[in-house]
Amino acid sequence: MRKFELERELVNDYDKTNDTTVSGNRLAYRLGELSKVGLTNDNGSNRPGFSQEEKRAKELVMEWMREAGLSVRMDGAGNVFGRLEGKKDVPAILCGSHVDSVPNGGHFDGPLGVLSALEVVEAWKEEGYRPEKPFEVVIFSDEEGARFNGGLSGSEAMIGEVDMNQKLLLQDSKGMSFEEVLQDVGLTVEGYQAAKRNLNEVEMFIEVHIEQGKRLEKENLPCGIVTGIAGPCWLEVTFTGEAGHAGNTPMNDRKDALVAASEFIQKVNKLPEKINDSAVATIGKLQVEPNGVNVIPGSVSLYIDIRDIYKETRDQLVEDVIQLGRDIAMKQSMEIRFSEKMRVDPVPIEESTQALLEESFRACGIRPYKLPSGAGHDAMVVGKKLPIAMVFVQSKDGISHNPAEWSDLQDCVQTVNVLKRYVERLQD
Amino acid sequence: MRKFELERELVNDYDKTNDTTVSGNRLAYRLGELSKVGLTNDNGSNRPGFSQEEKRAKELVMEWMREAGLSVRMDGAGNVFGRLEGKKDVPAILCGSHVDSVPNGGHFDGPLGVLSALEVVEAWKEEGYRPEKPFEVVIFSDEEGARFNGGLSGSEAMIGEVDMNQKLLLQDSKGMSFEEVLQDVGLTVEGYQAAKRNLNEVEMFIEVHIEQGKRLEKENLPCGIVTGIAGPCWLEVTFTGEAGHAGNTPMNDRKDALVAASEFIQKVNKLPEKINDSAVATIGKLQVEPNGVNVIPGSVSLYIDIRDIYKETRDQLVEDVIQLGRDIAMKQSMEIRFSEKMRVDPVPIEESTQALLEESFRACGIRPYKLPSGAGHDAMVVGKKLPIAMVFVQSKDGISHNPAEWSDLQDCVQTVNVLKRYVERLQD
Repeated sequence: MRKFELERELVNDYDKTNDTTVSGNRLAYRLGELSKVGLTNDNGSNRPGFSQEEKRAKELVMEWMREAGLSVRMDGAGNVFGRLEGKKDVPAILCGSHVDSVPNGGHFDGPLGVLSALEVVEAWKEEGYRPEKPFEVVIFSDEEGARFNGGLSGSEAMIGEVDMNQKLLLQDSKGMSFEEVLQDVGLTVEGYQAAKRNLNEVEMFIEVHIEQGKRLEKENLPCGIVTGIAGPCWLEVTFTGEAGHAGNTPMNDRKDALVAASEFIQKVNKLPEKINDSAVATIGKLQVEPNGVNVIPGSVSLYIDIRDIYKETRDQLVEDVIQLGRDIAMKQSMEIRFSEKMRVDPVPIEESTQALLEESFRACGIRPYKLPSGAGHDAMVVGKKLPIAMVFVQSKDGISHNPAEWSDLQDCVQTVNVLKRYVERLQD
Repeated sequence: MRKFELERELVNDYDKTNDTTVSGNRLAYRLGELSKVGLTNDNGSNRPGFSQEEKRAKELVMEWMREAGLSVRMDGAGNVFGRLEGKKDVPAILCGSHVDSVPNGGHFDGPLGVLSALEVVEAWKEEGYRPEKPFEVVIFSDEEGARFNGGLSGSEAMIGEVDMNQKLLLQDSKGMSFEEVLQDVGLTVEGYQAAKRNLNEVEMFIEVHIEQGKRLEKENLPCGIVTGIAGPCWLEVTFTGEAGHAGNTPMNDRKDALVAASEFIQKVNKLPEKINDSAVATIGKLQVEPNGVNVIPGSVSLYIDIRDIYKETRDQLVEDVIQLGRDIAMKQSMEIRFSEKMRVDPVPIEESTQALLEESFRACGIRPYKLPSGAGHDAMVVGKKLPIAMVFVQSKDGISHNPAEWSDLQDCVQTVNVLKRYVERLQD
């Protein structure tokens, strides 16, 4: 991790010249230490959910939590809570993210959110500040789902939204069951189910996360206010025309499924802009049958990923896509079939939450910029039951889930300052 | 082969009521007997080139050739020539096709051409007719190329257009080399190379073949005059944009390679009609990378098959396709790469040949209808060196290379009548 070492050098200067109790030096050091757990040959991160690597990463953070004076506990799902008691016995503010990664992923997706929350505590400690409300630094287990193609296991367990029958059927690539995997890191199915927390104990959940997109980079901003977490709907669409010999079938006597599908792709791409700025529709996966160079495509199956942060517009876009497909199929005398593979409700973030975050951005001298989250996060799960807030940090080139994932330390420190200010404002 | 048995019943009546020496009964019987060699569980045909099945099919036809009074020889490539001497010692008229098949193919693609030529001889025999010019019924080896993904091995050997170094590198799916495969059916590499015929001995080659398309069915005609054999050009085209997260990348900040490719597919489909009626362009094979539901396609590779029976217009269409791709790539700020995988010259058929065939069609009471051949045939290979003529027979639903391949016997008999008339007119 030469890159981190270099960053630390910069930080020494940075800390000296900045008027803040937030330490970029400490943050960079801790990101660097975490990056060594499950480091890959590509300088990437390999800490699948419920692996020994994720466990070791949690233990490292738990040690820092204790050093910072937090009382630390792990629930039956492996979620870690480092609690700072408030002056009042009221519901706690939770703040954090996860420390697991995708295979050969980056070093910011997850860890930055956990360490940012911890850095707020460190800064308070230095200032001798004690909040009115209890503050808990959280590490949720298995957010990425690299092990079982699922993810969000920790946050789902905490809010008690788990389909246990389905979980018990899961097998990882080595054939290990969910139960065996839990046991491997000292957890049990009974404990996992008992991880459901009394949500009256919690006021809200705040998550800092890298953007994994390029909007903030384009705006040249360290961080931004998330307006909502988009819920994806996945449709499988199949156009069925008629296969035929590419040489012997005149152009005017064809039912080429790929020609129909390509009109569909062209027009789906134009639909979201008719809805709003946050909606997106992507055709990322496509299969031609029979897929022979000299055979007119008889059928094409494709997957559409449709997202928006508002349920109403997302569902409207789904309807529009289906109608468009039907129109094209009818016009070209083809069959079309739709199959809905997934539909997750978006989680909008309250206007009042965004407004208070805006105030914190301004107080830290940062222009408040709002942007949707296209990807799912622990905050999406928690948001089903509790108020949430989310702050995105600029990602270099928008790259994520890749060893090249990067956020500049100055941007990270500014984000922690915003976060600290925001949490302090929540005390009123 | 219940279908053939049924057809034979019909034929008995047919032969009685038709004023011709061509016997539908015999033709159906022989098609039926050939269909039993390599019959699959699906009632399809499995006689790969240079297989024991192809060999047995040839032996069966050779027996019928001898019964018809032909002098029969097999060359070193396994090509069979059944010769009827003419009254004059002049170059021979060759007529035939092949008896090998694709895996689980049909019973008409190939055999009908060979048996039609033989049926002309049978009819002459019944009439006591002897042609002025020698007439040879031909079976070319390995037309389909099911064994080595090549094909046309017999006709190429006869005209001496073989890349022997390349042939010797071939391996079939069981790892057998071209040399071993030849040996397996009693042939040798030396014999194969020596199969080159003195083409001064040959006046022309005539091939009857099923259309493998639907034009004749739509025109409700038994057969038609082939105007030329299209030469395919295969291009591999790769659009390279930028992969990205389907949720986190706004619609106006994408370089979606599939969106570019789909505009290309749409527009390629409209290009041939601007050229002429015979040109076709097909995108049959396409691969998206990384092909994940929630990932914006970073690159798309597709194959275009471009054909026409005229070299000039085919090459013009290739140029137009390339220019179109470049324009789209430039407009959408993407990279595009082209790789030419194949370019075979089309073989047009002489106007005078088509005119004489027209006369023969009319003499048999059939409206002369002209159509291009989109697929390659032995006549395409022979046509590089010698004049050729081709007659297509109506294919039910255009289906070919499939057990459901079918041509009605009445159509086959009418075609043999046309062929007979045509060969007789060539004697003048």
